[in-house]
Amino acid sequence: MNTQNKLKIFNDPIYGFITIPNALIFDLIEHRYFQRLRRITQMGLSYLVYPGAHHTRFHHALGCMHLMQKAVRILRFKGVKVSEDEENALLIAILLHDIGHGPFSHAMEHSIVKGISHEEISVFFMELLNEEFNGNLTLAIKIFKGEYHRKFMYQLISSQLDMDRADYLKRDSFYTGVAEGNVNSERLITMMNVVDDELVIEEKGIYAVEQFLTARRLMYWQVYLHKTSLVAEQLLIRVLKRANELTEMGEDLFASKALLYFLNKEVDKVALSKQSLQVFSRLDDNDIISALKEWCYHKDFVLRNLCKMILDRELLKVKIKTKKIKEDNYEKHLEKLIATYEISRNEAAYFVFTGEITNQAYQRKTQRINILFKTGKVSEIVKASDHLHLKVLSKPVTKYYICYPKEKL
Amino acid sequence: MNTQNKLKIFNDPIYGFITIPNALIFDLIEHRYFQRLRRITQMGLSYLVYPGAHHTRFHHALGCMHLMQKAVRILRFKGVKVSEDEENALLIAILLHDIGHGPFSHAMEHSIVKGISHEEISVFFMELLNEEFNGNLTLAIKIFKGEYHRKFMYQLISSQLDMDRADYLKRDSFYTGVAEGNVNSERLITMMNVVDDELVIEEKGIYAVEQFLTARRLMYWQVYLHKTSLVAEQLLIRVLKRANELTEMGEDLFASKALLYFLNKEVDKVALSKQSLQVFSRLDDNDIISALKEWCYHKDFVLRNLCKMILDRELLKVKIKTKKIKEDNYEKHLEKLIATYEISRNEAAYFVFTGEITNQAYQRKTQRINILFKTGKVSEIVKASDHLHLKVLSKPVTKYYICYPKEKL
Amino acid sequence: MNTQNKLKIFNDPIYGFITIPNALIFDLIEHRYFQRLRRITQMGLSYLVYPGAHHTRFHHALGCMHLMQKAVRILRFKGVKVSEDEENALLIAILLHDIGHGPFSHAMEHSIVKGISHEEISVFFMELLNEEFNGNLTLAIKIFKGEYHRKFMYQLISSQLDMDRADYLKRDSFYTGVAEGNVNSERLITMMNVVDDELVIEEKGIYAVEQFLTARRLMYWQVYLHKTSLVAEQLLIRVLKRANELTEMGEDLFASKALLYFLNKEVDKVALSKQSLQVFSRLDDNDIISALKEWCYHKDFVLRNLCKMILDRELLKVKIKTKKIKEDNYEKHLEKLIATYEISRNEAAYFVFTGEITNQAYQRKTQRINILFKTGKVSEIVKASDHLHLKVLSKPVTKYYICYPKEKL
Amino acid sequence: MNTQNKLKIFNDPIYGFITIPNALIFDLIEHRYFQRLRRITQMGLSYLVYPGAHHTRFHHALGCMHLMQKAVRILRFKGVKVSEDEENALLIAILLHDIGHGPFSHAMEHSIVKGISHEEISVFFMELLNEEFNGNLTLAIKIFKGEYHRKFMYQLISSQLDMDRADYLKRDSFYTGVAEGNVNSERLITMMNVVDDELVIEEKGIYAVEQFLTARRLMYWQVYLHKTSLVAEQLLIRVLKRANELTEMGEDLFASKALLYFLNKEVDKVALSKQSLQVFSRLDDNDIISALKEWCYHKDFVLRNLCKMILDRELLKVKIKTKKIKEDNYEKHLEKLIATYEISRNEAAYFVFTGEITNQAYQRKTQRINILFKTGKVSEIVKASDHLHLKVLSKPVTKYYICYPKEKL
Repeated sequence: MNTQNKLKIFNDPIYGFITIPNALIFDLIEHRYFQRLRRITQMGLSYLVYPGAHHTRFHHALGCMHLMQKAVRILRFKGVKVSEDEENALLIAILLHDIGHGPFSHAMEHSIVKGISHEEISVFFMELLNEEFNGNLTLAIKIFKGEYHRKFMYQLISSQLDMDRADYLKRDSFYTGVAEGNVNSERLITMMNVVDDELVIEEKGIYAVEQFLTARRLMYWQVYLHKTSLVAEQLLIRVLKRANELTEMGEDLFASKALLYFLNKEVDKVALSKQSLQVFSRLDDNDIISALKEWCYHKDFVLRNLCKMILDRELLKVKIKTKKIKEDNYEKHLEKLIATYEISRNEAAYFVFTGEITNQAYQRKTQRINILFKTGKVSEIVKASDHLHLKVLSKPVTKYYICYPKEKL
Repeated sequence: MNTQNKLKIFNDPIYGFITIPNALIFDLIEHRYFQRLRRITQMGLSYLVYPGAHHTRFHHALGCMHLMQKAVRILRFKGVKVSEDEENALLIAILLHDIGHGPFSHAMEHSIVKGISHEEISVFFMELLNEEFNGNLTLAIKIFKGEYHRKFMYQLISSQLDMDRADYLKRDSFYTGVAEGNVNSERLITMMNVVDDELVIEEKGIYAVEQFLTARRLMYWQVYLHKTSLVAEQLLIRVLKRANELTEMGEDLFASKALLYFLNKEVDKVALSKQSLQVFSRLDDNDIISALKEWCYHKDFVLRNLCKMILDRELLKVKIKTKKIKEDNYEKHLEKLIATYEISRNEAAYFVFTGEITNQAYQRKTQRINILFKTGKVSEIVKASDHLHLKVLSKPVTKYYICYPKEKL
Repeated sequence: MNTQNKLKIFNDPIYGFITIPNALIFDLIEHRYFQRLRRITQMGLSYLVYPGAHHTRFHHALGCMHLMQKAVRILRFKGVKVSEDEENALLIAILLHDIGHGPFSHAMEHSIVKGISHEEISVFFMELLNEEFNGNLTLAIKIFKGEYHRKFMYQLISSQLDMDRADYLKRDSFYTGVAEGNVNSERLITMMNVVDDELVIEEKGIYAVEQFLTARRLMYWQVYLHKTSLVAEQLLIRVLKRANELTEMGEDLFASKALLYFLNKEVDKVALSKQSLQVFSRLDDNDIISALKEWCYHKDFVLRNLCKMILDRELLKVKIKTKKIKEDNYEKHLEKLIATYEISRNEAAYFVFTGEITNQAYQRKTQRINILFKTGKVSEIVKASDHLHLKVLSKPVTKYYICYPKEKL
Repeated sequence: MNTQNKLKIFNDPIYGFITIPNALIFDLIEHRYFQRLRRITQMGLSYLVYPGAHHTRFHHALGCMHLMQKAVRILRFKGVKVSEDEENALLIAILLHDIGHGPFSHAMEHSIVKGISHEEISVFFMELLNEEFNGNLTLAIKIFKGEYHRKFMYQLISSQLDMDRADYLKRDSFYTGVAEGNVNSERLITMMNVVDDELVIEEKGIYAVEQFLTARRLMYWQVYLHKTSLVAEQLLIRVLKRANELTEMGEDLFASKALLYFLNKEVDKVALSKQSLQVFSRLDDNDIISALKEWCYHKDFVLRNLCKMILDRELLKVKIKTKKIKEDNYEKHLEKLIATYEISRNEAAYFVFTGEITNQAYQRKTQRINILFKTGKVSEIVKASDHLHLKVLSKPVTKYYICYPKEKL
């Protein structure tokens, strides 16, 4: 299938080289839908804290595909049968797993299209592509939806130790420079094996898995839920919310056509027609940032100030607590704001708000990690470990935050 | 000067940590003019070839400052006197050396503001900031303009081995993943010394300098002048040119207010008033990409197609030759295009064009590198080297290119 | 104090460069006692598992000194007063902290000189050096012994987060290639501060400390206590034991003069005279390996086979269990060996033996880690963490092993 | 052929993981002859300058094998046919290419066994192993000797761009910390192709080859021929020479049996019998260092002082010049030494000597590098390059040195 001029090697700062294995995958990467991911950052507004974090969904998807190639090679080396068609489907499924992400990835999920996850939108795009590519994506879609009978293939796409996490933790740690969150994905992959069509980790990889889980915990609290990113993303969500509100009130906002489309109508799962998917495929980070840049001169007090905060990095104060924020604490800040700027309670609530963040280092119930002993026995990792701290780590941690303006808005 | 809450450490994937040394520099970084650099990529459209190359001018400027801190520490360790004021001025000068860059850095220099380099615009911004910061930037500006009597300070800002190159070569090599272009900037800095207020490299650094110069040559031909980047940047320039043309013809183009300002008037050195500088300070990569995204639905054949080419990465063909492109070769492509699409010669010339690219590994005449021997003797590096290849490398290399459409536009 | 020709910079694969700050430290490094550390590996026989692990105590000591320079710089930056004399003493103390190590570092501690730790021998050497260097090491020795009133200085030398661990975990992880054990020492150092002359970690470093502790746990079980290293070290100890036994029985063994000295007499704490210290200062890994190489042709069954096992990497089998090894299991292997080779019970016991290994991820009682909150409050880390897994991790883990020969010895 | 318990993965700090592909190769690695390479350093005494440079021939050989696996994978990907037998032979040939190295690698080549290169001794060992392994190494030996008809296979083993260089330049750069000598071996390998059974580099790799050649030049002058390593190696050679002389004069020297064997007789190509090869197989760095450690207490002035110089790193002075050392300069130092210590001219000549060192960045005549253009044309790289500096670099550079004692011996 390798046509000479479709062989291609990407340089990658992390893995060295990423090889495009065949012409079909080459053509998928070339496709407009996939190229769009070049304009969607992996970590939303985290670059406001970590100036190196400008890597994109495009790059992440290539990285995942590269790790999947490794995983298939390792599993075959250990005697697990994976046919060429299955390999190709695995590569395509992981390559396209994020193709449904909208601007700023998770930060704005549910803000533009309501009540529908990016994975569901990914499936819509895969189906569109399957039509274009004469059904060559059928098996990939089956695996992606978890409908294929060999369960480990789905687990390579989506589980506690899937290729998605293996890449994003490594990549995010690399680009942010938070070296202590670095995970040795390639090591983990060399430890993988398959028993009864289920993914397992070989015994000697047990400490590597522990380290992986604590690195992930660290990345969550220190990076993904960093208070500056947190507040920036909350502001971004509120910008969209306010823009929606103003649009409904008849205000004409400056924005790209694609963004206006979604501002003007409530698009949800049901409404996500082929047409709206086409418009969605034109949206990326630029639509949002450009809108913000114009809107920070808008006459609306709320919209203008939210936008300026993000653009000039003059964010709200944020306090993170282990206990729920008390109502009167919230009220105090809200009232002060109302008084100072003579704005309504509704308007003030854009700048004073509370919320909670939660993380579970190991989702023991839903996505157990199994360890394969030399004896052939398979045990869930908490039971396999010589220590109980993993059991403790499987309890979720929740924190609470309140955001409110500094002295001067 | 260190106010506790203004101490700050940035994570950097390359150097580990970058420390903000004092409150003045902290405030400069926080300034809107400097924050803008977060939205200007260092390498223009190179990410179309190297998917990791999304790093920004903001990050580069911090990196340069970090290297300058190292350089000052090393020089003082070797007994070179650098006062605290001088150190601070050096840090500020290098931090702000690129603050005048417009969207897409070099790619669009001269396309938006005519006949004025980004360094000159940087000076304008520094002077604005100097007013705001009560004259605290005066010495920095003096050094930056080459007007300070200690010449090595200017050389640390701008010369063959300045902190700018030391950072950008390392950073660009790092983010593109072109590891063979990696330069050991920190090593070079440890080899620096000062004789008669001029920067020199100690004898044992001679091979490191050679390697630096060949790495730079490699980065130019393999990365900066990579044919895909080259054609993408040429298309970008032509997009602006066409947009200008259409605007002059009375066409109303969709664009951000800031971009419209520059489309609608010819701004050059003379015209760069305080007002236009304010507008300029609102321009970044987003203004351009957002415009492209709308313009690829524009009715004008030329504008529409140029924009689509960049966005969907369906670029022109490009041939790079060691000899000048022959006129009839150019004519052949041009006429074919005119015939196929029934467009004017002027319109067709947007898609068929020639040009030249040139690079000189070592600019011996203008920016000599001097080597300090253990004996105390100082020699220019070509004379100091045990080999003549550096002399040969100081001859410029010029190549010629022609761009024209693939079969289907 | 910097005499030009004593300035020196070492290349280091991990930190880039290590700078020798002054002539006294330069002279200490040049000293025969310190140069000896070039011939003592950091990780004993671990290279039998990790072929990259040939780094030395010499290199580790330089690395520690480098991190101490960083720590002092960071603490001063935060306003902690450290005088030049104190800084110098800190650098010397950490540089020499391992100068008392004998061949193969920990593996043979107590095998050559009985009942005395390498730290105690380090003090002896420091005192010898102090005489030679006219009392310039007095403060360093005081800090090293924990007798200086500013407790954090001792903590930088010896505590849960000292510069020793900060270097060896990073270095061992680096050279073994066990990247998942990599700790971000430089990050940890930037988080340090001093409250009431005690070392603390700032609040935002809490996840980094967690990651540090789990990385250390991983390094212990996966690397330091790897079963192949474990058995190789146990064999090495038994080689010395057997050589002692044979010497006592009047056998003349081939060995270097220095090694013979210690084989022929029982040297313990009391007997460690100046003379024997001089002989000790001539011992390194080569004395041991060379002896093994000759001894593997010795007529004694036990000595010969122990030596061959190590040299040709034909080691004993080892089983690691979570429960104590049962006596009859041990007896079974022992008797089989006695029967096969017609050797005595005492001789057979060199090849069949049991033992236990233990590790505690966080020594909460003896070496607590304190966290400094933004409010100024200081809490021990288990109380400061949002999770209880650290408390769990402070419980020691013990495992048990049995070693016995493969089919053919 | 993969027996489950012979699958093995080595951790490697450079490549991450090195996989042992089959049981035969596993058994070769386990063999006593190959395990010996664990005790032979790759870079001789260079660790006296670069404290990290303690990596071994064992590790290098594994690294070469790993790169060969990559090369075969890439070439097959490009359509070059390589049978399984050929692949296996390539892996074995590169794995064993250095098995004939004696103590301290190049430093002592020709000092122990006269007039015979390590490659020739490698062939002897391969033949011994071929007997043991029932002729399974026959094809590997044929390729290694350049007798196989597919020339590119020999070129992968030995040429300007072979896997040996690709690994040692990268590895030596890595372990010394001389990052500017780092070569992107993996990149070079991805650029390889085969035309008419000859190895070529694809056009786009031309700058990478240039960078490779200048990196190699840098490594030679800055690292391999560093004046401290140079003098240390020259001293080592002279230690052996003096030991030979003393032995011939009837002196009984303390040394391991294996070393004594070679001291006592002149072993050259003819005399290298199976027996002497067995003795050779017991020699490694330890034999030499242990001898030095005893000999530094020997009564012979010359032997004693040479040994102490190396062990305590109190080396001779060395001057490197671009012109031949003048006879009277040499005489001056020699006579001074004779007068000071009242020794013979012959004895003094051990401490005062001259020599020359030479390096050729690109051996154009003997080992041309060919470039494959997209058109299918193949050109030698000097002609293919856009610059003449490679032509200049193909001229050898020679320097001259003189060594003599410092004030006090």
